Amino acid sequence: MRVYLDNNATTMVDPAVKEAMDPFFCQMYGNPNSLHQFGSESHPALRIAMDQLYSGINANDNDDVIVTSCATESNNWVLKGVYFDLIKNGKKDHIITSSVEHPSVTATCKFLETQGVKVTYLPVNNEGVVEVEDLKNAINDKTALVSIMWANNETGMIFPVKEIAKICKENGILFHSDGVQAIGKIKVDVQEVEVDFLSFSAHKFHGPKGVGGLYIKNSKKLTPLLHGGEHMGGRRSGTLNVAGIVAMGKAMELADKYMDYEYTEVRRLRDKLENAILEIPDVFVVGKKEHRVPNTILVSIKGVEGEGMLWDLNRYGIAASTGSACASEDLESNPVMQAIGAEADLAHTALRLSLSRFTTEEEIDYAIKQIKQAVARLRAISSTYSYAPKNHKSGL
Amino acid sequence: MRVYLDNNATTMVDPAVKEAMDPFFCQMYGNPNSLHQFGSESHPALRIAMDQLYSGINANDNDDVIVTSCATESNNWVLKGVYFDLIKNGKKDHIITSSVEHPSVTATCKFLETQGVKVTYLPVNNEGVVEVEDLKNAINDKTALVSIMWANNETGMIFPVKEIAKICKENGILFHSDGVQAIGKIKVDVQEVEVDFLSFSAHKFHGPKGVGGLYIKNSKKLTPLLHGGEHMGGRRSGTLNVAGIVAMGKAMELADKYMDYEYTEVRRLRDKLENAILEIPDVFVVGKKEHRVPNTILVSIKGVEGEGMLWDLNRYGIAASTGSACASEDLESNPVMQAIGAEADLAHTALRLSLSRFTTEEEIDYAIKQIKQAVARLRAISSTYSYAPKNHKSGL
Repeated sequence: MRVYLDNNATTMVDPAVKEAMDPFFCQMYGNPNSLHQFGSESHPALRIAMDQLYSGINANDNDDVIVTSCATESNNWVLKGVYFDLIKNGKKDHIITSSVEHPSVTATCKFLETQGVKVTYLPVNNEGVVEVEDLKNAINDKTALVSIMWANNETGMIFPVKEIAKICKENGILFHSDGVQAIGKIKVDVQEVEVDFLSFSAHKFHGPKGVGGLYIKNSKKLTPLLHGGEHMGGRRSGTLNVAGIVAMGKAMELADKYMDYEYTEVRRLRDKLENAILEIPDVFVVGKKEHRVPNTILVSIKGVEGEGMLWDLNRYGIAASTGSACASEDLESNPVMQAIGAEADLAHTALRLSLSRFTTEEEIDYAIKQIKQAVARLRAISSTYSYAPKNHKSGL
Repeated sequence: MRVYLDNNATTMVDPAVKEAMDPFFCQMYGNPNSLHQFGSESHPALRIAMDQLYSGINANDNDDVIVTSCATESNNWVLKGVYFDLIKNGKKDHIITSSVEHPSVTATCKFLETQGVKVTYLPVNNEGVVEVEDLKNAINDKTALVSIMWANNETGMIFPVKEIAKICKENGILFHSDGVQAIGKIKVDVQEVEVDFLSFSAHKFHGPKGVGGLYIKNSKKLTPLLHGGEHMGGRRSGTLNVAGIVAMGKAMELADKYMDYEYTEVRRLRDKLENAILEIPDVFVVGKKEHRVPNTILVSIKGVEGEGMLWDLNRYGIAASTGSACASEDLESNPVMQAIGAEADLAHTALRLSLSRFTTEEEIDYAIKQIKQAVARLRAISSTYSYAPKNHKSGL
């Protein structure tokens, strides 16, 4: 049996999404900017897709929803655009972000620091979430931008974006939220939470890889990351990825359609899995269930290296993660575990399990059985667990 | 009958390319960076695709071929990367490009000018090509980069990239070439022509939209445009677009396989079409056939507005262009026509016809017939042609 529990890394393309995009490769292949029927025949589908994207996040007609190649591009765009607009060619010098953002935010901030930008990396509490008070304290009159995610990729914890948006508005500061791990899992409404910029990525909600978006409130100014041929109203150049746009629109529509299912069935299966794991001694899960998106568990299993657990589970067909796939090639300890101040010997024990609407009860039952057996196997050979006296941090 | 003669704007995805990419949406959908079989099962296909890309342009193992979302991204990356590396944080201040580059180069240069960069836009001769002497004269000791295309998108003219590369090397200047309109049409060999950077885009050689690449000689330093999760060796972040990469690899392999066909059959059909058009009085074609890629014709038809011609041909199922689709939504005169100094009343008369390996003899015969009839129809109602005395530039 193969069980995919790594939906925060990427998701299966919904077959209905695949079907929607299929005609735009070999049949309706024209460039939508061309002045002939090969070009214009994709316009109705593009229009529908753009409507689906606007509707999915409740954007209004004054706002822009710009299609990019991925959320990494969207995140780089916002940070570097604001750098050119308000810092290099303006009077601000400061960006606030959190210590648990996606690498595309953190690495861009690190780069901007080399260009003279001051960056504050807000800490997180023991649930892995930024405290609003810390944000308030970090703001100064040279703060140009706050970039804080909507939901965390590793813990699934939902951040207080509504309060953050309010604080930013009161202080005249732009607010960007990386919504990659929120869209498709919880309702994201840009009228209710007044973000100025929101990044998203199709492949996290059952669309294809290689297409994402950036929502821009009131179409406000932002220096382009991709200058060129005036596509997307001059905001993001490059030949329109017609199949990708149609697919992302359809995926957004389906995400909206299955939102109730996400809150009920996906949550029920996640809770079943989580409760079963919590029966194992010496494990803890980061963050209260009710503060998390419905599909995610980040669990620390004492004495069990996350990497070892992954390989063991993989032998039995189960796909999980130690955290972000975007950083999984370097064998460092889980950054959220570090950020929440977990003991050193726990920071390497993170296991992330993330479900989707395609996850079945049968798969969860199988996963529970295999995870329990894997923990038993790995603890039996663990130097830090089986031999070490309890509460002794050892390098035995 | 529908005849697609706008292959310089975009191409049909080759059905074999579509077939190669298909399994990576709903079956092998894992994130290749994940440490489980859902992630690793795409590795063999990715490896094959990367080999196909390296082989297609004759890159060697010390070089990098980095997958991007399009050539617009690749072009922005090179120009902005060099800006950060050698200009903002270095001692250079100057970039040389041509006056007929793709908008993604020109617009990025215009943006960099607002940031204090000096840019020289080299003129072109009456064949639409940069003169090597002009380049030599433009170089100074603060020149950081020369960015000149391999072949022009509108005329199909091949630029003297080998000489330009030599001059740049002699002067210690980086050389970037936008190879978008060359790859798939003529042999592009980065060992023979020593470019430092080469941009390309899959959808111009029968791959899908939304994926392109940047070749970097000897893996030289270039500040990333997309910072983030250390994908592609830290050079271009963002979850790998597996289907797109596999597709671009396959498209490159096929482009190589059909190169002889391009030089023989595609050229023969292009020449047949061109010779027939040249039988019409008062037309001229930009650039000698033997200096062009084998698939392109840019023709000026006196007294016939390019836009009118497009619409007329479109009624009969023929897709053509007045120039770059990337700029076709603004009804300006053709920039190459302007650049080569065509008379004002000719600058609006450009018609670009671009073939592909999927173009058939039957389609060309049909196009010849329709183009001749369209010219007759449009000249009959043309204020500048039918009534004006010959050689009289008139606004009659």
